[in-house]
Amino acid sequence: MIIDCHGHFTTAPPALGQWRERQIRAFEESGARVSPDELVITDDEIRAAIENGQLKLQLERGTDLTIFSPGAGKMAHHYGDAQTSLDWSQVSNDLIARVCELFPGRFVGVCQLPQSPGAGLEASIGNSVAELERCVEELGFVGCLLNPDPSDGYWQAPPLTDRLYYPLYEKMVELDVPAMIHVAMSRNEALQGTCAHYLNGDTAVFMQLCMSDLFTDFPTLKLILPHGGGAVPYHWGRYRGWMLDQKRPPLETMLNNVFFDTCVYHKRGLELLLDVIPESNVLFASEMIGAVRAVDPETGRRFDDTRFLLDQIPIKDRQAVYGGNAQRVFGRLK
Amino acid sequence: MIIDCHGHFTTAPPALGQWRERQIRAFEESGARVSPDELVITDDEIRAAIENGQLKLQLERGTDLTIFSPGAGKMAHHYGDAQTSLDWSQVSNDLIARVCELFPGRFVGVCQLPQSPGAGLEASIGNSVAELERCVEELGFVGCLLNPDPSDGYWQAPPLTDRLYYPLYEKMVELDVPAMIHVAMSRNEALQGTCAHYLNGDTAVFMQLCMSDLFTDFPTLKLILPHGGGAVPYHWGRYRGWMLDQKRPPLETMLNNVFFDTCVYHKRGLELLLDVIPESNVLFASEMIGAVRAVDPETGRRFDDTRFLLDQIPIKDRQAVYGGNAQRVFGRLK
Repeated sequence: MIIDCHGHFTTAPPALGQWRERQIRAFEESGARVSPDELVITDDEIRAAIENGQLKLQLERGTDLTIFSPGAGKMAHHYGDAQTSLDWSQVSNDLIARVCELFPGRFVGVCQLPQSPGAGLEASIGNSVAELERCVEELGFVGCLLNPDPSDGYWQAPPLTDRLYYPLYEKMVELDVPAMIHVAMSRNEALQGTCAHYLNGDTAVFMQLCMSDLFTDFPTLKLILPHGGGAVPYHWGRYRGWMLDQKRPPLETMLNNVFFDTCVYHKRGLELLLDVIPESNVLFASEMIGAVRAVDPETGRRFDDTRFLLDQIPIKDRQAVYGGNAQRVFGRLK
Repeated sequence: MIIDCHGHFTTAPPALGQWRERQIRAFEESGARVSPDELVITDDEIRAAIENGQLKLQLERGTDLTIFSPGAGKMAHHYGDAQTSLDWSQVSNDLIARVCELFPGRFVGVCQLPQSPGAGLEASIGNSVAELERCVEELGFVGCLLNPDPSDGYWQAPPLTDRLYYPLYEKMVELDVPAMIHVAMSRNEALQGTCAHYLNGDTAVFMQLCMSDLFTDFPTLKLILPHGGGAVPYHWGRYRGWMLDQKRPPLETMLNNVFFDTCVYHKRGLELLLDVIPESNVLFASEMIGAVRAVDPETGRRFDDTRFLLDQIPIKDRQAVYGGNAQRVFGRLK
């Protein structure tokens, strides 16, 4: 069974984006709310979006199950206030739940959290605990996306290792669900989204974790760094050296809790990932349909067809990387 | 001849840091200035700092020349105002010039620029043009450090491709000097300096360059991305795909103007760098003495001894990577 642990509903029916635009505009103009009930999307619209999109590519590539979440960039946590993010998260997560119901065995949900920056940050983590619980217990989700920069490009929040986030980690451990660390959009013109802010978010959070004792406090907490861990495997020596300089535990102890996906879009990069990071910490993923959509003229395949690339790389326990590790990290998949 | 294109004077005599502290405190308390003339450092103090530090390691490792600049983190452009940065840059650059004079053939200077964030940004680029000219024409320097985030961790400036920076690029082209893109410190607790902000700066700027036509406007401008280019070579496929998605020129055209140093502190990372980036775009560097100072227990050598690592890697034109490329990119080295 091949499990793609990183897919977003980037092809959602247009009504979703239109509702979101109305929500943002109403709040900005008058502080008004737009009810989630005003969003109408039919099952046929969802089927069309999936059958012509993610399901088609699953079948073409021979992958079985996608761990599926709302569009990451579109989480855009900086808009409005904590209630804005809560309404938007519930709308987005409910839509993911409908995808999972319509395509059983093909998609399982990971939720967006109603995070919010600035003064609302702490309250928004309280809301996130409740939304995570709802999504896991009522909708059957198996994890969440956790945004280290709800200011969307200006890095205004404390590190994810701050105690402010501990109620969320307590709930994650209790429910046995991991978080994929994933920034949302960037509204900062100096930091492009998919090729700068995304990778920088992964890199920044890995270093936050290296500097803290979060995993002493939560020994069973599991975090996934997407996009192959940003710059981390390429600079593994730098991190090893820094941990030694600072008399921190060996870098390898991070691997008890931190996992890396395979969203690296060339063979040479994936080889490095699998050379540096133990196979047991690498989870198959494509981020399909997402950041890069072109066909690579060198391979004739889409850049995000990571299965095609991984199939060419020697892997000792291919079943672990392709699905077994995901079943272990997403404990509720069993 | 082995040229290390990336070294900072991190071992400067303590009087330098003490002057800087007084400068910051005086400005914060009353807006007062501390005169650069108040800094007294003897030649013997400089000799001791270099002979026990960078020169010792040059001799041990068999490298010949270090392209030498002030401590990057310590540029800390966010303090004070544009005049604060100008005084500090002149003090720092004059000290580098003294190192180069005391150790001819061993060190050649690269200057810190008097950048400043916020309202003073544009004026500070004007000051930077003048300081670059002074350093190159009067002090014999061959390049500059250019900080893409003078807010030091909050990414408040426009991208380096903004026309605001064009007077600097005009002067660089006129003088035939490259810039090493290098952030300074991070004062943001979410973004650690050497292992997060540094790498993220490299990654962010590469993407700024991908999105712009800067090199159409300045076809001979040369920029060096330090720290092996942050996340860039590891994610080369992602950038290739993005350029195709956006109907931009092929990613490889960036290699006419963008160069990568070898500050990657493990062999597998360096192998990836040299597999992905053409040898003609890779410049030997160690960032010695800098971000990581420990000895790697796996090799018995310091992590920043990149020559030891590179000597083990097949390189077609070793002379180019070890020095020839630096002589080409730093045109005034000739």
